[in-house]
Amino acid sequence: MNTELTWLTELAFNQDGLIPAIAQDAQTGVVLMMAWMNAEAVTETVRTGHAVYYSRSRQRLWRKGEESGHIQIIHEIRLDCDADVLLLQVTQQGGIACHTGRAHCFFRRLDHASDQTHWTTVDPVLKDPTDIYTSSKP
Amino acid sequence: MNTELTWLTELAFNQDGLIPAIAQDAQTGVVLMMAWMNAEAVTETVRTGHAVYYSRSRQRLWRKGEESGHIQIIHEIRLDCDADVLLLQVTQQGGIACHTGRAHCFFRRLDHASDQTHWTTVDPVLKDPTDIYTSSKP
Repeated sequence: MNTELTWLTELAFNQDGLIPAIAQDAQTGVVLMMAWMNAEAVTETVRTGHAVYYSRSRQRLWRKGEESGHIQIIHEIRLDCDADVLLLQVTQQGGIACHTGRAHCFFRRLDHASDQTHWTTVDPVLKDPTDIYTSSKP
Repeated sequence: MNTELTWLTELAFNQDGLIPAIAQDAQTGVVLMMAWMNAEAVTETVRTGHAVYYSRSRQRLWRKGEESGHIQIIHEIRLDCDADVLLLQVTQQGGIACHTGRAHCFFRRLDHASDQTHWTTVDPVLKDPTDIYTSSKP
């Protein structure tokens, strides 16, 4: 192991070689999303200063913003007590973190009304996803 | 299925029946910790208004604060776009979320110095863990 990467060996990846990474807006504190990274994604994130995740559905590196242009610029990376969760402080380019075209992914709130508990969508779509993913990158 | 629990069926638990839950301080926006919940933990969290997780190491429900007194009072629960991550807005009783006696679990920062990248502990221990876990509950 390259001694320059000893910081990487301290991470506790799960049995699939992945670690959860929470992205938080560095300015507002809003939690934008949580996704997964493998060792390669973590390394590339640190090297480039842009968030790179591992897409479990596509089973490949997911350079956040590669299609949408909605890059996340890294300000700080934190590791938790068990070394099995990362917290990224980021600037979200374009102000849209979610593939649904919303500012962040946590747009459903658990509400209690009329003896019914249900999820309510409380944050607006800022840009139609079909426009995000078919338009040329900014 | 009880129709009152249809909100629960919308959650995408993983193959182990778990879903990650991020706890964020409702006042400061600080991300305190990330832990896991099973369906029972989610249900009890919603019913009691106190965060209940599932301890993977102890393989049982972990009522946050059951030993330390550091209960998390729930203000809001959010669900992400893929329905596979929860975000909790909480008040952290005692001001200590981490079992190390720190305010939150993300106390290590990735730093670059002298051509070396390393994790630096940047947040103080507020209370000795041995005092947290041996003292009687408040």
